[in-house]
Amino acid sequence: MTIQTVQNLHALGQAAQKAARKLARLSTEDKNAVLMNLVDLLRSDQKDVLEANRADYEEAESEGLEESLLDRLLLTSDRLNGTADEIQRVAELPDPIGEVIETSSLPNGLTTSRRRVPLGVVGSIYESRPNVTIDIFGLCLKSGNACILRGGKETIRSNTALVTVLRKALTKAGVTTDVVQFVDNPDRVLVDAMLKMDGYIDLLVPRGGASLVKFVAENATMPAVTGGIGVCHTYVDRSADLEMAAEIVHNAKVRRPSICNALDTLLIHSEVAVNGLPIIAKALSASGVELRCDNRALSILGPHSSEVAIPANEDDWGREFLSLTAAVKVVDSFNDALEHIETYGSGHSEAIVTEDKSAATRFLDEVDAAAVYVNASTQFTDGGQFGLGAEVGISTQKFHARGPMGLKELTSYKWVVVGKGQVRP
Amino acid sequence: MTIQTVQNLHALGQAAQKAARKLARLSTEDKNAVLMNLVDLLRSDQKDVLEANRADYEEAESEGLEESLLDRLLLTSDRLNGTADEIQRVAELPDPIGEVIETSSLPNGLTTSRRRVPLGVVGSIYESRPNVTIDIFGLCLKSGNACILRGGKETIRSNTALVTVLRKALTKAGVTTDVVQFVDNPDRVLVDAMLKMDGYIDLLVPRGGASLVKFVAENATMPAVTGGIGVCHTYVDRSADLEMAAEIVHNAKVRRPSICNALDTLLIHSEVAVNGLPIIAKALSASGVELRCDNRALSILGPHSSEVAIPANEDDWGREFLSLTAAVKVVDSFNDALEHIETYGSGHSEAIVTEDKSAATRFLDEVDAAAVYVNASTQFTDGGQFGLGAEVGISTQKFHARGPMGLKELTSYKWVVVGKGQVRP
Repeated sequence: MTIQTVQNLHALGQAAQKAARKLARLSTEDKNAVLMNLVDLLRSDQKDVLEANRADYEEAESEGLEESLLDRLLLTSDRLNGTADEIQRVAELPDPIGEVIETSSLPNGLTTSRRRVPLGVVGSIYESRPNVTIDIFGLCLKSGNACILRGGKETIRSNTALVTVLRKALTKAGVTTDVVQFVDNPDRVLVDAMLKMDGYIDLLVPRGGASLVKFVAENATMPAVTGGIGVCHTYVDRSADLEMAAEIVHNAKVRRPSICNALDTLLIHSEVAVNGLPIIAKALSASGVELRCDNRALSILGPHSSEVAIPANEDDWGREFLSLTAAVKVVDSFNDALEHIETYGSGHSEAIVTEDKSAATRFLDEVDAAAVYVNASTQFTDGGQFGLGAEVGISTQKFHARGPMGLKELTSYKWVVVGKGQVRP
Repeated sequence: MTIQTVQNLHALGQAAQKAARKLARLSTEDKNAVLMNLVDLLRSDQKDVLEANRADYEEAESEGLEESLLDRLLLTSDRLNGTADEIQRVAELPDPIGEVIETSSLPNGLTTSRRRVPLGVVGSIYESRPNVTIDIFGLCLKSGNACILRGGKETIRSNTALVTVLRKALTKAGVTTDVVQFVDNPDRVLVDAMLKMDGYIDLLVPRGGASLVKFVAENATMPAVTGGIGVCHTYVDRSADLEMAAEIVHNAKVRRPSICNALDTLLIHSEVAVNGLPIIAKALSASGVELRCDNRALSILGPHSSEVAIPANEDDWGREFLSLTAAVKVVDSFNDALEHIETYGSGHSEAIVTEDKSAATRFLDEVDAAAVYVNASTQFTDGGQFGLGAEVGISTQKFHARGPMGLKELTSYKWVVVGKGQVRP
């Protein structure tokens, strides 16, 4: 292990940039060979990785890291096999690089086209999940980008072992190991330095909690993905099928409460609240969901002692719970629902449950979010579900990519102009 | 005229944001009605604008502003008619908003698609040319974006008069004038405040010199377009048609030397330099171009006293001249040319002149720039020439848009998901 300093972080940036230029022109076959080597190694060569992870786990446990974080950093043989499956899917995806996006020709015979090219070097700063090391590498490699990885300090041994595997996969395919650079010094000062390396890093992908994403957005001097944070609403319209609403709301909250597309606030039209809210609440409370209700919702649910319904605080609106908790509000109109979403939403995923076509159309048109839904669970916001095959994350920006970011979203383009001596009049 | 303060700049941001939401849903017909009103007013209602411009001009002249800047701020009846023609072309372009980019459907029947939407609010900070006021407004309006305009202080009267025209065009079409916000206080402190308004401005477009673009890039808290600066090379390969090379180089430098796609450095292969350089230099010097040469180029051109060939300084490589000056270097190989471009280029427009197909292919593949050319003048890098109809500027970034930015490049997209009660397993 080489412990890097801020000084040699620049050497590492330079090496990545140089490798990126070669990688940009690597054939699809060679890139897939690396990925398939990686798939094999992840399946067959797990011993060192699992041992390193065990050491990380034991240290974290002895330091009293909480259960949910311990689970995040844990690698098992099954989890490594699952990661291998994902990399195999990435290998099977079409190569975005070289795709010709648009062509046109001028009356003078000059042809212009846009050709898809990699961004160059992608930096990623992430927290406890070590499989991010593999995921980011796989997507970057396939999209022709070198990467600079800086994982959490509590998984430094696991990440080091995983990077060794990545390097084996590259070497076996005859590709320079410089396409993956690993910041193996967990000192925070290297993160600060990375955020200023706009001369070397073309895009920064933070993967972790809201505070990490915010820190990166505010301090990075290069473009950074803002996302991974969702305050998501589902609005049950007055024309909703209430059984359908109960199923959708339950899925949006309970399937995986800790991810960014999970429901945070349920809005329900006052005309259907008396009938609908008890049905919805019953399903939620059966799964242990705590409901933080406005006064009207509370007065409807109050008598149903089986539901865990308590008064909401003002800051429960617009809160990303990431747990089995949801805010509930009764609204008097479609417009009030939209206004609530506009005020408190984070532009991630927003849904309406309705049988009214014009309400559905207005919702899709007027709600400004990365993903807008009619009659479906917001938990579908995912690169795999949306046909991208995989994702490095989910952007809530409007600039560059919005929503799930897959391979194409890690690319740029160049204008290619071919003439026969044309000059501009 | 309301002189704004930093405090009421936020009210102006809020008004723009609110208007942007309406504008996002305005029909193509209504948007075109505004643009065609504007075309009419620019042609028929020129008196106030020309008078205001006259006052700006006289003040600037009395303050000793240099000739080229005076020319930039000057409006004439012809120039206003030209601007009207451009706005008419924008009206005739297809409306990008609402376009469905991609659709897919899941096996469970859920359909997902990406629908093109406006960015929201575009801020622009620009220098002396008052027609930018009209250009930016026209492109923003057609792409459904509200805009906040802050022009140079030396054209404050012209811009105020032009904004009055914009507002008339909006009012006549029944569209809120809040879609265009004008910062009518020339105090620099308002620019600083604008750069921090990420809560209101989705994209900042600087239009002006390198120092403005750099200042915006370094200080804006929202995404900003980096571009409008080009250190452009044309490389004459050993297999080049030398007459063609002379024409291309001449056009790339002389057609308009003050724009960002103009040639800055000529690279020529040593095998053809003795024959080719005099031909190229003769054409350039006939148009008054000064050549700053490396030693070998100088020794070739030295005997030809008619050419203005002087030794280059080290900082002439990588300099954007914006004038009738070019740097000239003899290189020994294709690889040396690429290395020079990689070291000194700014990623704007780069060209090769060659009859060798494999050299052409390698150049297009390996040079990393917004636009790469074979056998044509770099002065073609332009939204109109590339089929975009118009442009707000030319980006040298890889993130979001690269090269000329037209209507589509002022948009984002949202994922639209329509179900019948689907939940995610």
